[in-house]
Amino acid sequence: MIEFARRMEKVRASDIRELLKITDKPGMISFAGGLPAPELFPVERLKGITQKVLETSGAEALQYAATEGFTPLRQKIADRMNKRYGTRVAQRNILITSGAQQGLDFTGKIFLNEGDVVLCESPTYLGAINAFNAYGPAMLEVPTDDEGMLPDQLERILNTVENIKMIYTIPDFQNPSGRRWSLERRIKFMEIVHKRDIPVLEDAPYSELCFEGKMLPSLKSLDRDGCVIYLGTFSKVFCPGMRIGWVAADEKFLEKYVLVKQGADLHSANITQRNISMYMDTYDLDEDIEKICAVYKGRRDAMHSAIAEEFPKGTKCTHPNGGLFTWVELDGDIDTRELLVECLVNNVAFVPGDSFFPNGGGRNTMRLNYSNMPEDKISEGISVLAQIIDRKGH
Amino acid sequence: MIEFARRMEKVRASDIRELLKITDKPGMISFAGGLPAPELFPVERLKGITQKVLETSGAEALQYAATEGFTPLRQKIADRMNKRYGTRVAQRNILITSGAQQGLDFTGKIFLNEGDVVLCESPTYLGAINAFNAYGPAMLEVPTDDEGMLPDQLERILNTVENIKMIYTIPDFQNPSGRRWSLERRIKFMEIVHKRDIPVLEDAPYSELCFEGKMLPSLKSLDRDGCVIYLGTFSKVFCPGMRIGWVAADEKFLEKYVLVKQGADLHSANITQRNISMYMDTYDLDEDIEKICAVYKGRRDAMHSAIAEEFPKGTKCTHPNGGLFTWVELDGDIDTRELLVECLVNNVAFVPGDSFFPNGGGRNTMRLNYSNMPEDKISEGISVLAQIIDRKGH
Repeated sequence: MIEFARRMEKVRASDIRELLKITDKPGMISFAGGLPAPELFPVERLKGITQKVLETSGAEALQYAATEGFTPLRQKIADRMNKRYGTRVAQRNILITSGAQQGLDFTGKIFLNEGDVVLCESPTYLGAINAFNAYGPAMLEVPTDDEGMLPDQLERILNTVENIKMIYTIPDFQNPSGRRWSLERRIKFMEIVHKRDIPVLEDAPYSELCFEGKMLPSLKSLDRDGCVIYLGTFSKVFCPGMRIGWVAADEKFLEKYVLVKQGADLHSANITQRNISMYMDTYDLDEDIEKICAVYKGRRDAMHSAIAEEFPKGTKCTHPNGGLFTWVELDGDIDTRELLVECLVNNVAFVPGDSFFPNGGGRNTMRLNYSNMPEDKISEGISVLAQIIDRKGH
Repeated sequence: MIEFARRMEKVRASDIRELLKITDKPGMISFAGGLPAPELFPVERLKGITQKVLETSGAEALQYAATEGFTPLRQKIADRMNKRYGTRVAQRNILITSGAQQGLDFTGKIFLNEGDVVLCESPTYLGAINAFNAYGPAMLEVPTDDEGMLPDQLERILNTVENIKMIYTIPDFQNPSGRRWSLERRIKFMEIVHKRDIPVLEDAPYSELCFEGKMLPSLKSLDRDGCVIYLGTFSKVFCPGMRIGWVAADEKFLEKYVLVKQGADLHSANITQRNISMYMDTYDLDEDIEKICAVYKGRRDAMHSAIAEEFPKGTKCTHPNGGLFTWVELDGDIDTRELLVECLVNNVAFVPGDSFFPNGGGRNTMRLNYSNMPEDKISEGISVLAQIIDRKGH
């Protein structure tokens, strides 16, 4: 009998993921994934870019490369972060990863012993729970409202719980809730963590998808002592199929990430790094993001007006002004897992919210994605959902 | 004081890697890396291929994709393995990874608890030691000669050592030694492991780079009960900059690899997977490999005749008939780390052999790579090396 490592007891297949495999089928209206709108990918432009990369540096682009990543891309990321997110990072603070997901895995590997405690929002990102689970921590949810983690609660937990190794946060347009931390909360949060030696993971895939008003300062920009480790990605603002993200961190941390990356996969695809780098030299990524935001804003509006009109009274719903997701809390004794089964039969998909609570709960909640469906499909899908909720609820 | 996970005590920077960072400098004759010859990369063909992929499936290629990998590529890999390596695997047995290195990391994650024992050849691949180290095993070297692990010794160790979780092997043109297991040893090895429930990792990046005679049957092709987990890669037979490799394994294992991949980075770059798949549809990879083999054979010959001519008497050297490396054992009391420092000053680089012995030893050995330098540079570099050895040794 071959035995797997103990950690594999926690790395398990999700029944929901199995169920949602059928969302690929034609005619399905899926609010389940976290997929960007593929019709906005710059396919035509990339034809020219890939040619130019192969023409000007084909052999280098196809060869092994430095673990840290393609230097000009690291420099561009650092510059862009400093300009857009208010940070003060340099190229040497940037490691290119295979999406932000890889940054989550590496963070677990670098910091977590079995039994350590990770503080997180409530709810929190399922993919982070999955990544951390391989390292055996306890995930402890800090009570969270629409403005972020509750400072008093955070402080109480930090004062009373042992073995807290890290705080995991998604301050902008959180997955799954769509919520964004207020500026006041960010400042208060950083005050609290600055009094302690504790790393903060700022997972920021959605920060630039800001539909209304200005971006808020990243936690990293408020970081006085280098405790914030920032995870960025091109997946939501450019395209995910290239799998290029980054870690931005103080050198004392970054050198560990580089070592772990070396053992994990040597380096991320060199040719896709160079494609993105040349794209940024040639086109204005900020303009692309504005276009993405305009489309997603329309879809969010379509979803929210349909929910307001058709969902039963007593339904609570977040009102994100950015990102990909909205979060619904149904009134009464409805189990959204049961709801999902019936919805799938009717060609509508979503993710039941309990997946995002590492310690259970949230059986009456659901995560709805609006970025991947056109507005008419969103209205249609929400109608179907509303009818099924009605039948279940009454 | 922020504490890292205990495992990070074993994940350390290598002084040799730091030293070798300077091998990039112009004029350096490097036998240090394991780099393929970039002049053989099909740059021109890839210009057409990348266009066609973007034209026919741009939006899909740039979107998120299944963790398991691009289905047509998985099918092609399975077909190719069955044809070339004598295996009987199906598409469902294949997971696309970011190079074979990622397969090493995942294997550690799936099988190893701290303190478990991994059996390996002596010497063995440095990158595997690095990947496994994060999971805290003891690496136990099985005495090995030019034909592979010694069966009696393997059997003795399996009978007497506890907690053996896995056997790590590179049967074809091993990194670092260049040695290939004989057919008899392969059969004997599989007989021994079939008597026990123990997973065997077959790391096979060099198998198809066979300059003389026929490829030998892979361990996977001799596997009667699914205990062999096979790691393949396009890095050495196509190009490494796309970071595409694969795991081929029985479903009972593969499902664990898929779960781990999900948490580690969701999936490997979709666009590069599709580029390779379309390349294989359009061109004959076998022909490319023949060309690569012809060039590397010339370089190996250049290296071996220079070594035979110029290195001191008493030098031992493997005679690989494939792969990228040859292995030198110097006579007498020479420390190849000291040698390296002097060689670098004289613009010649190699990797001291002790890096490949997880428990120390091999101070008088070195790994020489011949795939990345033209023949005249090889002769020149070996001359310089020989002169420095002469000075050191006498």
